[in-house]
Amino acid sequence: MRASDPLESPDTILTRVSGFPMKRYEQFAEQMAGLIRGGVLPPGQKLPSVRQAARTHGVSLSTVFEAYYLLESRGLITARARSGYYVRATAQHPLPEPGPAAPPAPTSDVDVSELVFSVFGSLKDPDIVPFGSAFPSPELFPLARLARSMSHALHRLAPDTIIAEMTEGNAELRRQIALRSAGFGIRRPLDELVITSGAMEALNLCLQCLTQPGDLVAIEAPAFYASLQVLERLKLKAVEIPVHPREGIDLDYLEDCLQRLPIKACWFMSSLQNPLGASLSDERKQALYALLVRHRLPMIEDDVYAELHFGDRPPRPVKSLDTEGLVMHCGSFSKCLAPGYRIGWVSGGRYSEAIQRLKLMTTISPSIPAQAAIADYLQHGGYDRHLRKLRHELESRQSSMLASAARHFPEGTRVTRPAGGYLLWFEFPERVDSLQLCRQAMALGISLAPGPIFSATRRFGHCARLNSGHRWDERKELAMATLGELLHQP
Amino acid sequence: MRASDPLESPDTILTRVSGFPMKRYEQFAEQMAGLIRGGVLPPGQKLPSVRQAARTHGVSLSTVFEAYYLLESRGLITARARSGYYVRATAQHPLPEPGPAAPPAPTSDVDVSELVFSVFGSLKDPDIVPFGSAFPSPELFPLARLARSMSHALHRLAPDTIIAEMTEGNAELRRQIALRSAGFGIRRPLDELVITSGAMEALNLCLQCLTQPGDLVAIEAPAFYASLQVLERLKLKAVEIPVHPREGIDLDYLEDCLQRLPIKACWFMSSLQNPLGASLSDERKQALYALLVRHRLPMIEDDVYAELHFGDRPPRPVKSLDTEGLVMHCGSFSKCLAPGYRIGWVSGGRYSEAIQRLKLMTTISPSIPAQAAIADYLQHGGYDRHLRKLRHELESRQSSMLASAARHFPEGTRVTRPAGGYLLWFEFPERVDSLQLCRQAMALGISLAPGPIFSATRRFGHCARLNSGHRWDERKELAMATLGELLHQP
Repeated sequence: MRASDPLESPDTILTRVSGFPMKRYEQFAEQMAGLIRGGVLPPGQKLPSVRQAARTHGVSLSTVFEAYYLLESRGLITARARSGYYVRATAQHPLPEPGPAAPPAPTSDVDVSELVFSVFGSLKDPDIVPFGSAFPSPELFPLARLARSMSHALHRLAPDTIIAEMTEGNAELRRQIALRSAGFGIRRPLDELVITSGAMEALNLCLQCLTQPGDLVAIEAPAFYASLQVLERLKLKAVEIPVHPREGIDLDYLEDCLQRLPIKACWFMSSLQNPLGASLSDERKQALYALLVRHRLPMIEDDVYAELHFGDRPPRPVKSLDTEGLVMHCGSFSKCLAPGYRIGWVSGGRYSEAIQRLKLMTTISPSIPAQAAIADYLQHGGYDRHLRKLRHELESRQSSMLASAARHFPEGTRVTRPAGGYLLWFEFPERVDSLQLCRQAMALGISLAPGPIFSATRRFGHCARLNSGHRWDERKELAMATLGELLHQP
Repeated sequence: MRASDPLESPDTILTRVSGFPMKRYEQFAEQMAGLIRGGVLPPGQKLPSVRQAARTHGVSLSTVFEAYYLLESRGLITARARSGYYVRATAQHPLPEPGPAAPPAPTSDVDVSELVFSVFGSLKDPDIVPFGSAFPSPELFPLARLARSMSHALHRLAPDTIIAEMTEGNAELRRQIALRSAGFGIRRPLDELVITSGAMEALNLCLQCLTQPGDLVAIEAPAFYASLQVLERLKLKAVEIPVHPREGIDLDYLEDCLQRLPIKACWFMSSLQNPLGASLSDERKQALYALLVRHRLPMIEDDVYAELHFGDRPPRPVKSLDTEGLVMHCGSFSKCLAPGYRIGWVSGGRYSEAIQRLKLMTTISPSIPAQAAIADYLQHGGYDRHLRKLRHELESRQSSMLASAARHFPEGTRVTRPAGGYLLWFEFPERVDSLQLCRQAMALGISLAPGPIFSATRRFGHCARLNSGHRWDERKELAMATLGELLHQP
């Protein structure tokens, strides 16, 4: 919308987020967010103190605390030591959040591959503005430092090791991943660990281990298109569970499906979901895990964006609650450290051995040099320092794209504001056909990921995912203006 | 057999190789081989000239030529320029060749994984003598030179490339593989090429692209156990085709099966087959290809040992005859250059695009640094020099193991003598239970690959595959003596 609407009432937003009743602190946070978006609280403005806000708005101290924490985690405000909360410089953007998806058809065969391949065929062209890419910008990663780690590692790697490590993976890499996993609260981080060729292989192995062709698998709607392709390849049927753009999957809907349908497995991203960026709260993760236990339902938890959270605390995986070995927690270095190295892993719970065996029958092992290089980097490369820098940079680029979208995109556009990662989900006015938009944009040198590739039933026809992880410059700003012009066409 | 039997008649051998009538030159070669094995023609002895031999034995000049060529390719004799043929120093070993496998059951479900995993669980233990390993000894490979290539390659690799190359693979690696493939006579080496995570992933992708669960696939008997595991994983049924230990698969039997059964694909190693080491002759490869065309049968040609041939000429793949795009030719650097890097490929014929798409849905891409390192090595590392050295070393180690087996193994033992690679197939006296032998040997610190893991129907109970590719030393000689003692037990 070219003109912002600063006086938009928080209630308008509330009613839009239908079906998900808001808690008091969320309502209060939305009120404050509305004031920030509308410019009433401009960038740099100090917020009322907690005590003062509680008095003014007639809410409890803890409601204010929780609301401010939510606003901070969403990147709208920032705390300064011994001073209070301030509106962030990049906080202002007037596009509202999309509503949750409507409930889909009960189950469906999956058939998205053709669509995905036709969209991504030209993505490697460097002349295309890569808003459609699923990978962050490669200049964000310490590739030169990784190359040094590779040299060190290969220098030290004994010839025998290069063959012996193919079964279980590089011992030091296993130890390093287990250490970080323990930090996320995962209980048996080393025993259950299987190193894979990226999280994509992990997902494939987990599903093969749990299902037969024709089985039902619960997935998110919208869902990462690659998971839909895997379902398609394995001839599985999708049960689509609607995802709220901030709160994550609809647990009531899931429970209802579990009661009615013989679902064999579920594949969810419980934190920083692709494409919406939603994260389940800790309470909702507990509720989800209780559901899994009640229904003896194995869950594949794809957690590849965990290290890209903007707040101080990493999101806690459902796997951290897993006392029964029902959760297969998948991670990867492709989004946060070493794209192209193709090193991921899964903490496979009670299915670990089966997954490990399947891996030996499929690819045998991820590349040993790549494993050894990452292991050396994790030990000596300064991974945490890199991650802090990366998160800050991604948050700033997200703000740039949000502000640009507010400048160029038409009224009625909605957008997510994930608390991490580099993906934004845009809901355009109903009249927009995002597949047509995608074709028009591609002809003008701009890629985007159209909504229908994120659904087994090709819904989300007026939505698109844009990658905000590339350096913001004039070329990107111009591309957003061009998209805006296409979107304004009747 | 502790005492050799120098006077064993060639006719005895002929009758043993039942079902496969020998050509005249093969009969003559076997006569000469018998004289060599029996010590009548000792190491260093000059053979009769071609003209002289033709006169003495009443055969044509071309029969003698072909026989001497066969003996040379089997490592028994060697040609010296302008002097003639001489018995090789390592040629003498009195164990005869096994006969072809008896025809198996028509089709069968596959269930070998448990057996394979129980055998290979302890293979990474460096204290075990690794006769059971499928990999050659790691000290045979130019790992330090590869590490230098890795440094060069990573230094030059542009950040954008590391993501862009995930779709099609490293451009220089593709070019280098295509160049070598053209040398093997492959027609469209670049267009059909898909880079994979080893030949194992290539095999998986090809089978997934060609079959549905329950379909019939023709494979060799005995066959590489990993291919049986893939069939098992994909719920395919095996049609086992007997393999002659030197001539390769029984084409008449295959044709008969193709006429009777709805076979959807075949998976064969046409050169240096694992575990027998057999290679189809060029004529038999042509006959096989004619069969494929007649039955519109796609063939997965696993050719991972092609570069390890002992003779001057590389074996020609069936793929070199493929005008119809029916052959998927799979190769790998794991056996000949860079174990643990996990880089393989497939020339997919008419199925290339389908295979490429499946790969994007399964592992996305093999490790980009590993691809770039091998590409640099192929350009600058001296690959052909390395291969010449490697082949010579493997041939010499094969002779050492054969001679050792002749010293220690009991009478009635037979063994293959492949013209390449590092795998020997032993057929022990009928009373031997190779699974029990395997357990006993493992308890004494020696691994071997027992016959039943090479069969969907767990046949070959008195056979075993031994890896001859490790440096021959006192420890290996002692291990052979120990195996000999176990084999002599009643």
